[in-house]
Amino acid sequence: MMAQKASIPKGTRDFGHAETAERNYIFSCIEQVFRKYGYAQIETPAMENLSTLLGKYGEEGDKLLYRILNSGDAFANADFDKPLAPQVCEKGLRYDLTVPFARYVVQHQNEITLPFKRFQIQPVWRADKPQKGRYREFYQCDVDMVGSRSQLCELELVQIVDEVYRKLGIRVALKINNRKVLTGLAEICGFPDKVTDITVAIDKIDKIGLDAVKEELRGRGLDEAGIEKLVPVLTLGGGNAEKLAAMRSLLASSEEGMKGLDELEELFGYISAAGIRTETELDLSLARGLSYYTGAIFEVKALDWQIGSIGGGGRYDNLTGIFGLPGLSGVGISFGADRIYDVMKGLNLFPSGLGNVPTLLFANMGSAETAYILPVAADLRRKELIVEIYPDAAKLKKQFDYADRRGIPFLSINGSAEIEAGTVNIKNLASGEQRSFPKDDTDAILAFLK
Amino acid sequence: MMAQKASIPKGTRDFGHAETAERNYIFSCIEQVFRKYGYAQIETPAMENLSTLLGKYGEEGDKLLYRILNSGDAFANADFDKPLAPQVCEKGLRYDLTVPFARYVVQHQNEITLPFKRFQIQPVWRADKPQKGRYREFYQCDVDMVGSRSQLCELELVQIVDEVYRKLGIRVALKINNRKVLTGLAEICGFPDKVTDITVAIDKIDKIGLDAVKEELRGRGLDEAGIEKLVPVLTLGGGNAEKLAAMRSLLASSEEGMKGLDELEELFGYISAAGIRTETELDLSLARGLSYYTGAIFEVKALDWQIGSIGGGGRYDNLTGIFGLPGLSGVGISFGADRIYDVMKGLNLFPSGLGNVPTLLFANMGSAETAYILPVAADLRRKELIVEIYPDAAKLKKQFDYADRRGIPFLSINGSAEIEAGTVNIKNLASGEQRSFPKDDTDAILAFLK
Repeated sequence: MMAQKASIPKGTRDFGHAETAERNYIFSCIEQVFRKYGYAQIETPAMENLSTLLGKYGEEGDKLLYRILNSGDAFANADFDKPLAPQVCEKGLRYDLTVPFARYVVQHQNEITLPFKRFQIQPVWRADKPQKGRYREFYQCDVDMVGSRSQLCELELVQIVDEVYRKLGIRVALKINNRKVLTGLAEICGFPDKVTDITVAIDKIDKIGLDAVKEELRGRGLDEAGIEKLVPVLTLGGGNAEKLAAMRSLLASSEEGMKGLDELEELFGYISAAGIRTETELDLSLARGLSYYTGAIFEVKALDWQIGSIGGGGRYDNLTGIFGLPGLSGVGISFGADRIYDVMKGLNLFPSGLGNVPTLLFANMGSAETAYILPVAADLRRKELIVEIYPDAAKLKKQFDYADRRGIPFLSINGSAEIEAGTVNIKNLASGEQRSFPKDDTDAILAFLK
Repeated sequence: MMAQKASIPKGTRDFGHAETAERNYIFSCIEQVFRKYGYAQIETPAMENLSTLLGKYGEEGDKLLYRILNSGDAFANADFDKPLAPQVCEKGLRYDLTVPFARYVVQHQNEITLPFKRFQIQPVWRADKPQKGRYREFYQCDVDMVGSRSQLCELELVQIVDEVYRKLGIRVALKINNRKVLTGLAEICGFPDKVTDITVAIDKIDKIGLDAVKEELRGRGLDEAGIEKLVPVLTLGGGNAEKLAAMRSLLASSEEGMKGLDELEELFGYISAAGIRTETELDLSLARGLSYYTGAIFEVKALDWQIGSIGGGGRYDNLTGIFGLPGLSGVGISFGADRIYDVMKGLNLFPSGLGNVPTLLFANMGSAETAYILPVAADLRRKELIVEIYPDAAKLKKQFDYADRRGIPFLSINGSAEIEAGTVNIKNLASGEQRSFPKDDTDAILAFLK
């Protein structure tokens, strides 16, 4: 049989020892913080019914869903005059963790306690064009609370962001906006249906300047009167408090806009009471996920590394409605583990000694010698030491090389002399120091290995 | 829009807080032992190329593979006169962790150090008929070593089995066989191509008795002379040493059979030198995965709970050959997390206090009161306490209920009196004991919560 090429699908990755250890470090830091705020973990299946997934991510998202062929003969009863994919695929791979979470809340509504605080760390799949930093399989780390409209929920997410990135050693800025304020802005301009156009244009002010933004707004169908109303927003400066005050007079006539400002003011009040150290900035151009967020919008930017957002989220009032449970408001944030990984690699932020390099390698000198050291190795492992015995009685050079390539710091070589003396000989490979111990005195051995 | 039913595909599962915590406990126990023996983690993508998966699990296995529809218009260039599935699906979901591991070793052969010791804990998918204890998505926990033919590798797996199940509190028996011995048996009967038939028949001796087994062997095409040769095996009693001795005289004429006995003898020698406490039993009827194991075969049975095997594995000499890397021998074992879960549930073996129940809930008495306790909560969290603040200023009854349903043991209610006094009031909900602390003295609060 001809040998097959060993390869994996485009846009997917294998993770080796070192990378897995580093990724686990990220997951574990994030998870510890989630837990400290009372969020508990759930897991949902990789496969969801396509009916659960379709129509939740826009037309573009539907195209990016991985569909799974029905098992058995999928095409047996297909009508070939009609589109085939919907007939032969009932399941798809999860595209994010938010829709499965909404589905979970509705399906398990009688088992959960509201407000319901959950986190979920699992891979998602998107048939996106692979490129640098964009993969077809990647992990999301989501934390959400449903069942409360309180701004304390938003605060908790801000606290979590603050703590997670400090723990990881990444300096970040947290940008905050509120969808209701954007709606208010569109209202006072007289173009309530142009929320997205207005936000996109505002976003460009730093890059292209006031005149070009005005031109863009014209191109997007706003009239001069509407554009003039927006100028104060475009030239808004100062800290969060100043911005909020300026917006208050601007949005006075929009009930929705004022509600958004109330929410932001409450949140920023909590933020200063809780002593958040991360820079939090009211950013009126932030429009992330505009299509489903209804209140707060969050985005996290790394300060010392050029990359897109490394976290983001917001409040969504209507997410479980589609599954038959209206009136539940939720707010959540998602940490992008892959980008966080890139930032930490780039800034050299991973602590050393991740993974599980063995402390000690027993060289293999043959069958009798191995039987002699087996109980010693077992006793050291009982004391939680990571120990290996080289499996083959290979040349010592080869065994030394193995210790070297694995980064194992201590080597123990025991032959007939040691067996006769009842001792174990251990060498520190870095310093060359070598010592001999009675074979039963594993405590002394442990002390030497420290 | 009509509400959709919230459901998941047949044979898949959601895991809530408690179940996730229990499952994590299993994974973490297993992982800790793997690490102690120097195995390090890798992860491979959920999707593999179908060319990697097809033909590795037999014809039946191919049918159980989940195929993923190509993205874009999968049917655009399909030839409808030919089978469609192979044309429209290039990828499939991983069916086990062994084939992806073999693919990984070959693909990354220039990065890894031999002997290569890895573990992998990830879900796999099979389009099997769902039934009690059988799911379409389930986790495997695999530990393997490639690049050595030493029986010390087998010993290490036996040690890992011994330690994992002791850690979990499950009493088990480890059954051991060797494929070469089975080959030898078929040879001395004169039916070298009937290894499977012979093994299946031997397996039934306890259930149906000697005469019925003989009848079965006749039905499977063996002649009387061949069957008579097998009688000593069928009536084999005694401990492992007696069985090995009896087999030595029986298989004397089979080179392969004697090689298998040598391997078993070496392994059982190591097992007694290493002080394994788990019952290890030479079981000549054990034929698990006969199609690809070439040496040792392992199976783990729970002693106190009726269920199939809860772990198993063996040695495979030719696994990476198909991907173009011949001559590498590997041996591994897989722990069945789902069955282990069932056994632990059934025997009530999970320790209490898994998961992360918050220790303290701050009741929400309004905005000013919340701002007052925010720094206290932040300080307690800085000291690693799991703390929640109820998000809404709801009726106290509702907040009490929440603490009760979440199992939170301490409740802190602070109103204007506490604010004025600068104190924090905390109640032990089980004992009713209530105490007041200066709001800055979080160390005293922590001591009370212990």
